[in-house]
Amino acid sequence: MATYQNDRIVLAARPAGEFALTDMRLEHETVGGPEVGQVVVEVGTLSIDAFIRTILDDGSYHQSVPIGGLVTALGVGRVIDSTVEALQPGDTVFGPLGAQRYATLPAAALRTLDVATVPATAYLGALGLTTGLTAYFGMTEVGAVRAGDTVVVSGAAGAVGSVAGQIARIAGAGRVIGIAGGPRKAAFVVDELGYDAAIDYKNDDVATRLHELAPDGVDVFFDNVGGAILDAVLLQIRQRARVVICGAVSQYQQMGHVAGPSNYLKLAERWARMEGFNVTVFHERFGEAETALAGWLAEGRLRMHEHVIHGIEQFPLALQTLLTG
Amino acid sequence: MATYQNDRIVLAARPAGEFALTDMRLEHETVGGPEVGQVVVEVGTLSIDAFIRTILDDGSYHQSVPIGGLVTALGVGRVIDSTVEALQPGDTVFGPLGAQRYATLPAAALRTLDVATVPATAYLGALGLTTGLTAYFGMTEVGAVRAGDTVVVSGAAGAVGSVAGQIARIAGAGRVIGIAGGPRKAAFVVDELGYDAAIDYKNDDVATRLHELAPDGVDVFFDNVGGAILDAVLLQIRQRARVVICGAVSQYQQMGHVAGPSNYLKLAERWARMEGFNVTVFHERFGEAETALAGWLAEGRLRMHEHVIHGIEQFPLALQTLLTG
Repeated sequence: MATYQNDRIVLAARPAGEFALTDMRLEHETVGGPEVGQVVVEVGTLSIDAFIRTILDDGSYHQSVPIGGLVTALGVGRVIDSTVEALQPGDTVFGPLGAQRYATLPAAALRTLDVATVPATAYLGALGLTTGLTAYFGMTEVGAVRAGDTVVVSGAAGAVGSVAGQIARIAGAGRVIGIAGGPRKAAFVVDELGYDAAIDYKNDDVATRLHELAPDGVDVFFDNVGGAILDAVLLQIRQRARVVICGAVSQYQQMGHVAGPSNYLKLAERWARMEGFNVTVFHERFGEAETALAGWLAEGRLRMHEHVIHGIEQFPLALQTLLTG
Repeated sequence: MATYQNDRIVLAARPAGEFALTDMRLEHETVGGPEVGQVVVEVGTLSIDAFIRTILDDGSYHQSVPIGGLVTALGVGRVIDSTVEALQPGDTVFGPLGAQRYATLPAAALRTLDVATVPATAYLGALGLTTGLTAYFGMTEVGAVRAGDTVVVSGAAGAVGSVAGQIARIAGAGRVIGIAGGPRKAAFVVDELGYDAAIDYKNDDVATRLHELAPDGVDVFFDNVGGAILDAVLLQIRQRARVVICGAVSQYQQMGHVAGPSNYLKLAERWARMEGFNVTVFHERFGEAETALAGWLAEGRLRMHEHVIHGIEQFPLALQTLLTG
C-alpha cells in the first residue's frame, strides 16, 4: 500500500483576539493509503476564506477546529488514489480538503469538477461556493438587485465582493460603488472590476464620500465587513433598501464582542431590511448559478482575478493577510 | 371673536441624556379664534408615545421640537370652533393636537372619527396610528406572522406590544411570549392579554428564560425595546426568522450612541431578516386595518387596556414614566 508524506497545518492554540502566526504550526506525517470508500487527493489550490478565522474559536456556528486538529479549508485537487469506482486517479475534485498537501477523504465529501470549459481554480473564485455562488445568491436573491439600483459592496476587492459588484452591473444596476482598503485596491475595483467608483476606507471618510457618490441613497448594500463601514452605509440607505449581511471580516477577530450596527434604527426610518444568509441554503440552485456565472465568464462580462500564494507552509500568513486587509 | 385660555407644554431645554421633568414647562396663553381654514379643538386625550422622546433632540428624523415650541403629541378631541363646512362644533377628531388644552389647527390636519361603534380613545389605542395600526402592520406585514409561529414581543405590556401579541394570537401563532419589566406587567401580559408566557426582564435572564420557553427558537420577534433585549432574542431566532424593528425605547435617551445589536450576525447564520418600518408607509391600507381591529374589538378577541392620566400639567411626568418603564 502506498504511503504519502503529508504536510499539514494544525491549530496550535486558539487565537487570543487577533490571529497570530504562532496559533498554527506545520506538521509532517506519513499517511497510509485510502480505506474503503475513501480517496486520496493531492491538494492543488485552497481557498483562503475569512470564515476560517471564526472556526479557530470555540463555539463557532461552523464546526470549530480542535486544538491540534487540521485547519479546515475548501480547495481543489487531483485524485491520486481511490477505492471507489466513481472517482479515478486524475479526476479533478472540489471539497473540504483542509490545509495540507494530501487529503484522505470519503468520496462522498468530494465533487468532481468539469474542467473542460473553466479552470479548476474557477471553483474557488467566480464559481466558488464561498465566493462566486455566495456573491450570486447574495446579490440576486437576498439583495434582490434591480435595474437602476444604486449598489454598494464592501470588501469590494475581495473574493466575494469582486464578483458581487460585477453581478450587480450585469443585473443592470445604475451605479455600483465599492468600498476597499487602500488606493491600490480602490483603483483595482474601478479599473479592473468595472465598478463606477470606489471608496478607500483607509483614507476617505466613508459616510462623506458615499454621500457624494450616491446623493440619492443606496438601494442594495452587500456587506462583507461590518463594524464602522456598515454603520456608515446604514446612514445612507434609501426607502426599501436591502442590506445583505454576507460577512463581517472586521469583527471576526473579536467574535466575543462584536460591534453591532448602531445605526440599525435607520431600518425603521427607511422601511428597509437587513438580511443574512449562508450560501448553502440555496444548494438546490447551485447548478443554475454555476451555469450563469460560467456563461458570464465565457462572454467576458465577468472577470476573475486570482491571487495565488504557493506552499502549504504559507497558509497561516495568507490567512493573516486576508484578515488584516 | 372668542378667545381661549390655553395651557400648553413647551420644550424648555433639550434633554442632556435622560429626559428630565425640567426639560419642559407649562405656559399659559390667550389664543384668538381660528383663521380661515382652521378649527379650534378642545383636546380630550393625548397619546403618550415613546417617539416623542426622539423629537426632543436635534436632528431627529421626525421633525424636532424647537426650544420654546409646543411639544408634539397625537390626540383626540372635540371641535369647538370652526371656519370650515366639513368640521362642525361637536365633531370628534384625531390629529397632531400637541400637548395643550386647545389646539388651533388647519382642518386638513384633522380626521373626523366615527365614535358610534368604538370610543374616541380607541383611536389612541387598539385603532391608534402609533399603537394598534403599528402593531397590525408590523405583525402581519413586516413580521408576516403565520399559523404555528413562535412569536416574541418586547414592550409587551405597552400600547403597541399589547396589541401586537394579541394580533399574533388571532393570526394563529403557536406560542406568543411577551417581554415586560416587572412582575406586575408580566402577569398582566399573561392574565389580561392572553399571552402564553411572559419574561420579566427586570428579574429574569432573558436569554435563559427564552430558551426554556421557546426551545425550538423564535419565528417572529416584534421589538419595541432594542438594546440587550434585542441581543438576547437574536440568539434564539430560527431559520428564516423575521425581526421587526418597531422601536427601541431603551435607546431613545441616548440616540447619539445607540447600542447596535451585537448578535446581528445570527441573521447570516439563520438566514433571517431584520426589517424596520414606519406605520405611515401603509397609509393606503389604514381603513382595512381599522375595520379588522374594530371587528376584533367588537368580538372580544382583542382587548383594550387604557392607562389614562388627567391634566395637561401631568404630560411631562407621563412621558418620563413611559421612558423609564
